[in-house]
Amino acid sequence: MCAEDRLPNGGEFTFRELVWERLEQEADLLLRDLFPICRSLTGEGVRQTLRQLKAVANFEMHEVPSGTKCFDWVVPDEWNVRDAFIADLTGERLVDFRRSNLHLASYSVPFDGVVSFEELDTHLHSLPALPEAIPYRTTYYNRDWGFCLAHRQRETLDRNADYRVVIDATLQPGGLTYGECLLPGTSGEEYLVSSYCCHPSLANDNLSGVILWTLLLRELQSRPHRHAYRFILVPETIGAIAYLSLHTEEMRRVSGGLIPTTVAGPGKFGFKRTYLGDHRIDRVIELTLREQRLDYVAYPFDINGSDETQYSAPFFRIPIGTISKDKYYEYPFYHTSLDNLEFISAGGLIDSLKLYMLTIEKLELDVQYESQNPYSEPMLGKRGLYPPTGGSIKQSAVDPSKSHHDRTYSIGGDNVAYGSELDAIRWVMFTADGSTGLLEVAETSGLPVRQLYDTAENLRRHGLLQRTAGQGR
Amino acid sequence: MCAEDRLPNGGEFTFRELVWERLEQEADLLLRDLFPICRSLTGEGVRQTLRQLKAVANFEMHEVPSGTKCFDWVVPDEWNVRDAFIADLTGERLVDFRRSNLHLASYSVPFDGVVSFEELDTHLHSLPALPEAIPYRTTYYNRDWGFCLAHRQRETLDRNADYRVVIDATLQPGGLTYGECLLPGTSGEEYLVSSYCCHPSLANDNLSGVILWTLLLRELQSRPHRHAYRFILVPETIGAIAYLSLHTEEMRRVSGGLIPTTVAGPGKFGFKRTYLGDHRIDRVIELTLREQRLDYVAYPFDINGSDETQYSAPFFRIPIGTISKDKYYEYPFYHTSLDNLEFISAGGLIDSLKLYMLTIEKLELDVQYESQNPYSEPMLGKRGLYPPTGGSIKQSAVDPSKSHHDRTYSIGGDNVAYGSELDAIRWVMFTADGSTGLLEVAETSGLPVRQLYDTAENLRRHGLLQRTAGQGR
Amino acid sequence: MCAEDRLPNGGEFTFRELVWERLEQEADLLLRDLFPICRSLTGEGVRQTLRQLKAVANFEMHEVPSGTKCFDWVVPDEWNVRDAFIADLTGERLVDFRRSNLHLASYSVPFDGVVSFEELDTHLHSLPALPEAIPYRTTYYNRDWGFCLAHRQRETLDRNADYRVVIDATLQPGGLTYGECLLPGTSGEEYLVSSYCCHPSLANDNLSGVILWTLLLRELQSRPHRHAYRFILVPETIGAIAYLSLHTEEMRRVSGGLIPTTVAGPGKFGFKRTYLGDHRIDRVIELTLREQRLDYVAYPFDINGSDETQYSAPFFRIPIGTISKDKYYEYPFYHTSLDNLEFISAGGLIDSLKLYMLTIEKLELDVQYESQNPYSEPMLGKRGLYPPTGGSIKQSAVDPSKSHHDRTYSIGGDNVAYGSELDAIRWVMFTADGSTGLLEVAETSGLPVRQLYDTAENLRRHGLLQRTAGQGR
Repeated sequence: MCAEDRLPNGGEFTFRELVWERLEQEADLLLRDLFPICRSLTGEGVRQTLRQLKAVANFEMHEVPSGTKCFDWVVPDEWNVRDAFIADLTGERLVDFRRSNLHLASYSVPFDGVVSFEELDTHLHSLPALPEAIPYRTTYYNRDWGFCLAHRQRETLDRNADYRVVIDATLQPGGLTYGECLLPGTSGEEYLVSSYCCHPSLANDNLSGVILWTLLLRELQSRPHRHAYRFILVPETIGAIAYLSLHTEEMRRVSGGLIPTTVAGPGKFGFKRTYLGDHRIDRVIELTLREQRLDYVAYPFDINGSDETQYSAPFFRIPIGTISKDKYYEYPFYHTSLDNLEFISAGGLIDSLKLYMLTIEKLELDVQYESQNPYSEPMLGKRGLYPPTGGSIKQSAVDPSKSHHDRTYSIGGDNVAYGSELDAIRWVMFTADGSTGLLEVAETSGLPVRQLYDTAENLRRHGLLQRTAGQGR
Repeated sequence: MCAEDRLPNGGEFTFRELVWERLEQEADLLLRDLFPICRSLTGEGVRQTLRQLKAVANFEMHEVPSGTKCFDWVVPDEWNVRDAFIADLTGERLVDFRRSNLHLASYSVPFDGVVSFEELDTHLHSLPALPEAIPYRTTYYNRDWGFCLAHRQRETLDRNADYRVVIDATLQPGGLTYGECLLPGTSGEEYLVSSYCCHPSLANDNLSGVILWTLLLRELQSRPHRHAYRFILVPETIGAIAYLSLHTEEMRRVSGGLIPTTVAGPGKFGFKRTYLGDHRIDRVIELTLREQRLDYVAYPFDINGSDETQYSAPFFRIPIGTISKDKYYEYPFYHTSLDNLEFISAGGLIDSLKLYMLTIEKLELDVQYESQNPYSEPMLGKRGLYPPTGGSIKQSAVDPSKSHHDRTYSIGGDNVAYGSELDAIRWVMFTADGSTGLLEVAETSGLPVRQLYDTAENLRRHGLLQRTAGQGR
Repeated sequence: MCAEDRLPNGGEFTFRELVWERLEQEADLLLRDLFPICRSLTGEGVRQTLRQLKAVANFEMHEVPSGTKCFDWVVPDEWNVRDAFIADLTGERLVDFRRSNLHLASYSVPFDGVVSFEELDTHLHSLPALPEAIPYRTTYYNRDWGFCLAHRQRETLDRNADYRVVIDATLQPGGLTYGECLLPGTSGEEYLVSSYCCHPSLANDNLSGVILWTLLLRELQSRPHRHAYRFILVPETIGAIAYLSLHTEEMRRVSGGLIPTTVAGPGKFGFKRTYLGDHRIDRVIELTLREQRLDYVAYPFDINGSDETQYSAPFFRIPIGTISKDKYYEYPFYHTSLDNLEFISAGGLIDSLKLYMLTIEKLELDVQYESQNPYSEPMLGKRGLYPPTGGSIKQSAVDPSKSHHDRTYSIGGDNVAYGSELDAIRWVMFTADGSTGLLEVAETSGLPVRQLYDTAENLRRHGLLQRTAGQGR
């Protein structure tokens, strides 16, 4: 159990005191530090990345040995590269792994030899449509080798020459490395936060997601929460499958989850729904985006994507949602060398982090209350909760577009419109039947979940509400 | 039990024979008679109003003593005003309750003294945005006093002068007065019709609703009906809560209800939905408005409003709908002296009354039938129900926009489009599975409920249908 | 049992090998052969029609004797016509049944006499709005006689003359003839395909439907299928009712059905929904039309129509859908002599036939599978089901509008867009929970049912899927 339970399970759940500028600087440094590392499904690059992240947020590192059977899959041999290049016969390196780790197709087998252009060409990958970009390619389960290069460079190769090809790599039994941190909760519900750490020098996909995962973990470690959270950082597909096979029963009990990925691009936010489409995960994300009045791209569930396909497989059926900023597949630089640090920004990453935080905040604040005066409105005046002069007191309703602007919320919430306190009191009391959560109240009333929660807790202190049993804290 | 059961529980439910012009004249006289009376939560003004209404429709008057505990509330002292004014020190009355009862904030405590402008000013209410209007204000549960006046007049007050303030009022133990009439039914379902009688000289909100309530009660008393109806006329909020606390078990069994309020303005009809949004009450109102082809403003349920908040509170959860004409909150003269007899019209009130009647008619006619020939269409020819020559008989379907205009319905129904009799016969026979009500048939077929009912009763006389047991009459 | 069970209940269900041109020629010949025959509810014309169709597809012919009681109805006497005309007193035939069988109202009683114009006129039917067209009229259950003629001709009749009227017909005990073929299945579900054969020389309504019915029957007889199919060809209304009364228990077990009618006009396809509106029948038709990207007219269920009213009556409630091409009621020539062979085309009929076939194909292919690796995606690479180089493999998702055009489907499917095979594999594996049918997978994924089925069967051969028990074949 990696989480330090230094915080009592009481107290207010809130991200409000965060200083976003500091987080942005931190993200910026992490992006620069980690970008150059060559990561893949396995290998030292992954270990190095996770070790550096452990300095930011505490989590455990685990290894699954090569050859371990995971359902229909087997953990592959570990892959490490010392050097790789294509040179002409004078020894001049034309394509050099040391200049960009994207040049070598991931999981290329060791090789050293001289080959004709004709043979070499069958091992080359380039993008005619993006002639300056090096594409990202893998050959995980097909023992082969390949080089990726800018199409413009490819066209300069002498078609009549021979070439020296060297891949000084090892592909042998070792381990698949992943990170994990379990944060226990009191509500009986557990949520998954999973990202993938197997991509080499690609910034948006998915170094951005890895860093967001780490910062989000640290923030949740530092405050009380009702739900349990399972943070895992795995290589995509095989890592998620290995994790599922090692935690079958625990994973079957997970209520829902999030996969932060491609979260720092210059474009629009995106929201990919869970396979159910209307799960609580969908509702909290949708409400977060609505409260923030963000213009975003709506993606229905699709079978292509990240590890939601594994976590949502028939045996597990964990509904998984993703908030992205320039979603994978959708931006032209996807899986190329142009998905670099110039393409993304730490500011975009932190904006996405805010949305993940607000999403989790809504999961936390979705509490059910039971009215202690279910027969009518309570008498608010005698408790000092009502304006003293009546008659004009419903004016908030005259112009609802105005009534919701009283004040704004201090986290990521410059756009959040609060309603009148009287409206919040009335909605909360009216819906407090013991089984309706604040999420539903927010959806119905248009009031922010945070305001409803603060109001409900105030009414609880006045003895007008009780939490439904089992709602923790 | 106030309803005279002079009508047998048989016979046709219909409002068709009404003479609307006579009703409009009657409404006009009632508006003029009752407008000047000073009403509040309690007091002689309410009693006088109810006594005059009892001459129109028979109902019982009840009193709840001051100090009676009602759930979280207590019935307040009774408030009566003989006189109230602000005068200059020469004795000239500047603001005079006798000219408009809106000048005195409702429930102002007795007072007699000379005060500086500065002190007086803290007790004044005016509307800079509507400088000619006297606002309506209350101070029910905050022992204070206040005067309301036109902002233009307020600006003429000498800021250096002193003023004589007199409130010759009593605020002492007495009673809260309400009206009630129970009309028994045979269907086992009971519906509530509630309005509020606590507003002083304000025409649309809510003298119009009070008069509609009375006329609707009289019409229902004079004809047979399947459902039970509970008519109550109470001061808003505390009256509804007092009534609920005195009739807790009965009110828990109520199926749904209507609150006629603000029904005589010059603007559009409005429909505020029940808290469920799709209850039978919502459906009958929606169908009424659709059949009448009325352009109306759709209001979702909102926590602010009238007594639906009380009746729909968690313990009772009675779904309540409102049809309005210039809905409260929404017109600029709301809660000011400009909401007067010039603003509204008796004709508008009667148009709203028609809609309430048609709504109740649909509740009454929503009967379930069981086909006595469920195996196929019945042979209509041998019963004289079919045109003799075939081949062209489905022409009604060729142009559905025309087929629905054969004749119009005689109550409030100049716009109602009837379908062909053959269509009505077929729809009724097809849907007569013993559990589908005519409301659903109307929604599906687009045919008016009234036509379906008349047709079904005709088919019943031909032995082709039976009423499902428990459908009364 | 008319179906020759020469095909084993194994093997692929497919219409793909059909040669549409041959079918179109065949339809053309049948239209020309059968158009001139005088059909009605009963009589030799119906028998002759059915006998000729039996040469195309094998089915049984049955007779229900006149006078047989069928629920609320009685089978009428049989009607046969030798000759009928209106002549002037010189013997010149002005209106002659031998020129068009539409001239005589169906079920006109025998008559021979001289009548004044005035009397004759009460027996005449014409269409002022279509002055060149002979209308189609019947007098089935009203013992009368009538002649139908072009309005232009009617206006030329001498209003002062007398006329000889001869109806050399018999209306006497006989039989009501219908066709029937039951194709047994293994799935436990049975579907109805019913059309009506009672219209004289009218091409779209409904000789086209009768011929489509016959060709569809023949095709289903010639291939294996999971479901049982009940093909019946009856006179409209009384024939369907007679059939229901003779097969009450069998018909109660039918899952759904189709009524091919008016399927060969020059206009748009139409789809009339079942009375449920969202039954599996509605879904397979909707998907067929969507996959074909057809612009069609959507008709909600209506109580007027063909025999769906009988089959869907409360006791049976069989959901029935209809695909039409120039739907009855909706085209101006409906039920007139202008609904002739020039109005329709064999090509249009075959296009409709394709849609019925594709609809039935979807019923057949709506199989449920259970994943044999429900824990995650299966490892496709080791089975040769995955592209060897990764990284770019999700590009299909980059431009979904392109990814669905890989190849087209060979039956009626020039417009069907196939998705990538990898997408199909993933969707099928992901949804294979043992209870989700391929119809739902197609609706969710946008991939054609045919592709999903072919993919699923391939995965089954790889041992990755099993059919849910009871899914036949």
